[in-house]
This record gives sequence, C-alpha cells and structure tokens, in this order.
Amino acid sequence: MAVHNVTVESTLGVLLKEKRYSAIRDILVTMNPADIVAVFDGVTQEQLPLLFRLLPKELAAETFVEMEPETQELLIRGFSDLELHEVVNELYVDDAVDIVEEMPANVVKRILAQASPDMRKEINEILRYPENSAGSIMTTEYVSLRPEMTVSEAFDRIKNTGVDKETIYTCYVTKERNLLGLVTVKDLLLCPDRETKIEALMNPHVITVSTLTDQEDTARMLSKYNFLAMPVVDSGNRMVGIVTFDDAMDILQEEATEDIEIMAGMTPSDKTYMRSSPLDLFRHRIPWLMLLMVSATFTGMIITGFENALAAQVVLTAFIPMLMDTGGNSGSQSSVTVIRALSLGEIDFKDMASVVWKEIRSSVLCGTALACACFGKIMLIDRLLLHNPDVTVLVALVVCCTMVLTVMVAELIGCTLPIIAKRMGFDPAVMASPFITTIVDAVSLLLYFGIANLLLFR
Amino acid sequence: MAVHNVTVESTLGVLLKEKRYSAIRDILVTMNPADIVAVFDGVTQEQLPLLFRLLPKELAAETFVEMEPETQELLIRGFSDLELHEVVNELYVDDAVDIVEEMPANVVKRILAQASPDMRKEINEILRYPENSAGSIMTTEYVSLRPEMTVSEAFDRIKNTGVDKETIYTCYVTKERNLLGLVTVKDLLLCPDRETKIEALMNPHVITVSTLTDQEDTARMLSKYNFLAMPVVDSGNRMVGIVTFDDAMDILQEEATEDIEIMAGMTPSDKTYMRSSPLDLFRHRIPWLMLLMVSATFTGMIITGFENALAAQVVLTAFIPMLMDTGGNSGSQSSVTVIRALSLGEIDFKDMASVVWKEIRSSVLCGTALACACFGKIMLIDRLLLHNPDVTVLVALVVCCTMVLTVMVAELIGCTLPIIAKRMGFDPAVMASPFITTIVDAVSLLLYFGIANLLLFR
Repeated sequence: MAVHNVTVESTLGVLLKEKRYSAIRDILVTMNPADIVAVFDGVTQEQLPLLFRLLPKELAAETFVEMEPETQELLIRGFSDLELHEVVNELYVDDAVDIVEEMPANVVKRILAQASPDMRKEINEILRYPENSAGSIMTTEYVSLRPEMTVSEAFDRIKNTGVDKETIYTCYVTKERNLLGLVTVKDLLLCPDRETKIEALMNPHVITVSTLTDQEDTARMLSKYNFLAMPVVDSGNRMVGIVTFDDAMDILQEEATEDIEIMAGMTPSDKTYMRSSPLDLFRHRIPWLMLLMVSATFTGMIITGFENALAAQVVLTAFIPMLMDTGGNSGSQSSVTVIRALSLGEIDFKDMASVVWKEIRSSVLCGTALACACFGKIMLIDRLLLHNPDVTVLVALVVCCTMVLTVMVAELIGCTLPIIAKRMGFDPAVMASPFITTIVDAVSLLLYFGIANLLLFR
Repeated sequence: MAVHNVTVESTLGVLLKEKRYSAIRDILVTMNPADIVAVFDGVTQEQLPLLFRLLPKELAAETFVEMEPETQELLIRGFSDLELHEVVNELYVDDAVDIVEEMPANVVKRILAQASPDMRKEINEILRYPENSAGSIMTTEYVSLRPEMTVSEAFDRIKNTGVDKETIYTCYVTKERNLLGLVTVKDLLLCPDRETKIEALMNPHVITVSTLTDQEDTARMLSKYNFLAMPVVDSGNRMVGIVTFDDAMDILQEEATEDIEIMAGMTPSDKTYMRSSPLDLFRHRIPWLMLLMVSATFTGMIITGFENALAAQVVLTAFIPMLMDTGGNSGSQSSVTVIRALSLGEIDFKDMASVVWKEIRSSVLCGTALACACFGKIMLIDRLLLHNPDVTVLVALVVCCTMVLTVMVAELIGCTLPIIAKRMGFDPAVMASPFITTIVDAVSLLLYFGIANLLLFR
C-alpha cells in the first residue's frame, strides 16, 4: 500500500504544479479519507484549502474528521460561513464533538453557529458528559425501531433514516426511549417472513453501558462481546446513543500508548511523536526525572551512612550497580505484568493474595537462580579471571544473599503497589519501572550493607 | 454488568446443586458467550460437560470459541464423535483454525476427522500460511457477489448464503476470484432501484492486504480505514478471505501486551496472568535477568578500575545511584516513546535524523534543568542541611556535568537503538528500559570518573 501511495503523491505533486485541478479531483475521489489526509500533509498551507475544496461534500467531511486539529483549525479559519455550514452538518455528531473539543473558543462559536439546530442540540448534549466517559464519545445517530413494526417496515425505516446513521447494522428497539432489545440487519435480512414483528425477532438481553461508564471499560466490553456498537443508556435506562467499534479501537490503542508512557515515567501526551516539539518532550519527561532524581537523595544518604564500611571494603562498591539493576529489573517485570493484567481487567483488588503468593514463589525461583549464577560468575570471572584478591568467598556470599532478598522484595513491591494504587483510585501504571526502581534501590542498599555488617564486619 | 453476573452466578450455583437443568438452560440462553464462559470457569470439571450440553447448537459453538484452550481440550476429550462433529461444523473457519493450532496432535486428528470435507479443506488451507500472517488469521467465509448481479439478486444471495458468513455487511465483488470492488449492505439497502447492477454500485477502489502481510499491520490498516473487514488477496490478486474487526481488535491488544512485556525485559507470554504458574513467570523473566546481571560485570569492572579514586573520595560513591538512575530513566523515556511510535507506524528508518535532532534538543533541555536542580539540591541538602564536609562545590560540579552528558547520551542511545533494531529486523521493543539501562550505566560511570579525574584529581 505504501508504494501505491508514494506514486499517487508524486503524481499529484506534478498535477498540482501544472494546476490541473480536475485531474487531481479525479484521483482524490478514488482514495480513502485516511490516505487523502496523508497527501494533504505534504502540501503547503496555501494549497491545502484549494485541494480540500475539490472534494465532494461527503468525502470532504470524512477527510476533515481524519485530520490533525491544527489542520482542521487552519481550514476552518479559511472557510466561508457557507462552507463551514456544509462540512459541519455532514459530520457525525461524535466527530463534530471531537473537533469542537480541540478548537479554541472563537472557532467553536463559529462551528456551533453554522450547525443546524438539531446538530447543535446534540453536540451540546454530548459536551455535558464528563471527559473520558461513554457519554462523551458516543454518537446519538443510531437506528431505533419500534417493537410493533414488521420486518418490512423496519427496512423502510432504515432506508429513510439510514443515510445519516453511523451504523445501521445494529438497530435498537425502543419504546418511549426505553431500550427493549436489539435486532441486527443480518437478522432482518435472513428472516424468511417480512411480516414478522420486530418484537418477535429482537434479542431482549441487551448489554449496555451507562453514559458515565469509563470510555476504556466501554471499549473493552465492546471488544469482549465482539459488538459493532455498544448502546449507551442514561440513569433512567433510556437509550441515548451508541459507541461504535472504530472509536473503541482507537480508544484501546490510545489507552495502551498512555499506559506505556506512564510506565516509562512520562506524563501522557495527546500528540504523536512527530508532532511533538522538543519542548513538548521536555515537558512530558522532566517532572518524573526531577522527582526521581530528588528521591535518589535517600540512596545517597544510605551510602553516606555506610561510608566507613565502604572505605574499608571498597570492593563492595563494585557490586552496587549489579544489585540495584537486578532489583530494579525484577521489580519492574512484576509491576508491569500486574499493571497490564489490571488494565485488561484480568485481575483486581480481590486477587491480591493470590497475586502475592504467585509472585513470592516466582521470586524465590528467580532469586535463587540468579544468586547461584552470580556466585559462579563472581568466583570465576572476578576472582579467577580478573585476579581480584579482594573478592573473597565471604564477599560473594554477601552479594548473593543480598541478590535473593532483593529480588524477593522487588517482586513483592512490584506486584502489590499497582494493585493498591488502583484500589486508591490512582492510575496503577504510575507504579512501574522508574518508581519501583527508586524504592528497590534504597531497599537493596539497606539489605546489602545490613548483610555485609553481619557477615564481614562483626 | 459485574453485579448482574455475580447474581447470575450465585443463582446458577443454587440451581446446579438442585440439578434443575432446564431452569439453568433458560438462564444460559439469555447470556452472551463471553459471560457464559465466566460462569463455566466457576464450575467443576465434572459439571462442565453437563452444562455445556445444555446450550443450543449455535450458542454452544460461540461459547466454545471464547474458552481457554485447556477447557476446550477437556471438553473435546469428553465429546462423542457426533457432539464433536456438531460443534466443529458450527464454528467459523478462522475460529476452528485457532482451536486446531492450540490442541495436541491426537485431538487435532479427531477434530479434522469430524469436520465436513469443505471445512477440513479450508482449515488446512489457512494452516499453510505462516504464523502471524494475515492468511493465518483470516476466515474464508465472506459474501462474494458477481458484478452483473442486480441489487435484488444480491439480496437473494446474501439470504441464501449469509447465515454461515462471519460478516455479511461488506460484500466482495469478484470475477473468477479476482477482486473487482466492494459493496456494503448499507449501499444495497439505501439503493432506490432494486434492478441496479452491482457493477454500477460497487466501490472499485479496494484496499487489500496480502496473505503474507503481518497480522499487526493488517489490524492497524483495518483500524486506520475503519473497516468492518479487510479483504486478503493472494499473490495473483485473487480474493482468499477476510480479517474481521473483532479479530483485529484482539490482535492490537495482544501486540500491545507483547510490546509492554518485551519492554520490561520479559519474553512474551500467551497466557493471561492468572493462568500463568510461578514457573511460567520464572521462565519468562529469568533470561533477561541473567543476561543483564552478567552484563553488569562491566559496570563492576569500571568501578574496580577506579577503586583508588573512589577510596580517595568516598563521597563520589554516594552519587552513583542517582546518576545511574537518572540516565536509565531518561534513556528509557526516549526509547519507549520511539518504540511506541515505531509500532504505531508513526515513524520509520527514514525519520532517524529528525528523531535524533529532536531528542538532542530535548535532552539538552532535560539535562540542563536536571543539572541545575541537582546543583541546588547538593548544595542545599547534602552540604548545608546534612553538613557533609566532603561535598565541595567541585564535587557538585563533577556530578552536574556528568548529569548533563549522561542524559544527552542516554536519550541519544534510547532513540537510535530501537530504530536500528527495527531496520535490522529485530523487535525494537527489546531496546527498552532494561537494555538501555545497562548500557547507560556503563556510560554514565565512565563519564563520571572521567570528569572526576579532570576536575578533582589533576
């Protein structure tokens, strides 16, 4: 596909230079909105409105939705009121809301002024719902049927109203806006008798989310049940909208990215990497770096506290990085596993005991294996190969005992902190690598010097 | 929803004790396959086949697909040939393939023996495609139409063949298996004239993937274009199957989990956390822990090499953890950002120069800010507050210069290694936190002692 697009782009470049707009239009109408946006990204700010105006109304709206907010704003500022009116009213309500949420106030005012009264009412309704709720991402454009309709009447209704609906394939059977059941177009098409009542055909066991359900939970349920759309109901069980699979897919991707960013000690960003300036990167990275640097004061204080021991046995210093890194790595392994299981909904607070028990057993295995390997490595490499006379069996024992205990403590901290964080209403992803590392560093040093005191300096 | 299920589960528990199977059946048929599986997870191995046999044929097959492989195997081993025959032939081909891939050889033999000849042929065809390819995850059950059909003939064809198709909403127009275009059921339903030829209605600009396209790329394209299904063609551009949105969603989720696991230094696992034994966790975690522990030998060697310097200025040791952690954290921030951008297809090898330039500028900002804060912190906390006489302005300078350089080198390494790894055909996620940390540790120590030598020991 990439090859295909590159060719199209260079062809378009030539046509654009020669100002052969009708030829450009003929090519653009064969393309998919996402690909048209990629082409638009490559043209100048002057050419963009020119090219955009070549698109037929529906394709123009579909392409507009796929654009970055900056490009959308640029275009809107260049639009006449009539042009804006046409684009806005061609949009699906949820897409219009997305755009409104990204625009500065004066642009929003213009958009709402140009929206049809119905559209404006629906946009305002969705804007009322809290950020990241199912209500805030749903669309109000779904097909509703009445239970007493026949299959043939249902088809008529779909034909009459379907063109503006985001999906027609799942239809919702309502009475006074109460959701009674759902029926798919497949059910309707495969039904042998066109006079069958919808009531008889519908599935009355509908799974719904509330307008206040978290958007990630909504997307995950939709994926779990393989739904094309998830119906959203208000507190009175009245149907208010649907969340469609394409939006759910985007949400799951965004949430995964957000988790990954938080796990690596960054504040999550809305912008793609290429659109982020170095200043953006700096802003998202520096808070955690600062916090972690300052908290490393404790590790420094621990080392200072054992300065005399270290001065007497400088060889001990050489093993500090290895112990700290191994602790950090095993802690982050277990925290990341648990964080992911939490976000996929595989475990929650009530599973804490079984998680801890599993991690204890795993950490004993990991710790013992590492300690044995470490003992061999110290004896073979550090003592025999590198002829370091300070590396005694006792020193190796101190290092290996610290190793086992550090790995155990690290996995224990790594698996419990995310669960506790979630229980307390924080994002468990915060309890990943950088945070765990800082705690484990301090713990491993305390263990190290404690064991050294016991075995070496008595 | 959770509340609802808990209630259902306890009701079922009571009914099961009282052996009121028809009442149980009445409840189960109202439930969604994913929820039935949750109920089945709570019953004994003896009760499971009993409960499963209560389900009507179609629901039984849908529920079977959602089960864990262990449960599926258990059930299959208890099935009579007739029962197995019924379940297998009710499955969609792609689901049958998924099951076959997870089962031991003798179970596979029984499954294939009970599959209808058509089903067996299609299963075997899909099994030929390489793992993780679009071919290996597609289903061959799509609706194909001929270009010369009318809308009304198309509806007849959908009615006659649609019941076994995984989706009927996107229909593919083919001639001698060549893909000419696609038409949606929405197009068909909204078409005012039922005698319109499909040829005239279809969209001839079809985006396809090849059977050998990576499954993640396939899923990502489907998500990009908001498709319900992505058509898969062979090397001769003949239509062979479709990948549906629900499978694409699962793949994107699995790939995100896999990336997260690899980034945390684990070999990726197929099993969910709760199904993994401590031995499984150990197996997935120990390889990287071992490798990283052994590679920490270098850091140890560097420290040993500077033993005399450290013995003369033990205070330097106190700042080692902070420098190593800050380097590790900033390296992992940039590597994780770049790895995610690579997997989302936002950047590739050709963007390397602009990525490096962006990271250099960001690292100068981060490094300088950290160094300034660090200088203040050392002077205020370590020198004034903790009255440590060894902490001189010169020592603080050594630490802060090392800080700036370490952060710069760390971000540079963090952003380039994943891109290079991908270019060389490795998984870029390997180049995340643990790996970067090990390299940055060594670099930061060398910088530290180098700068200390320059400023302190001349």
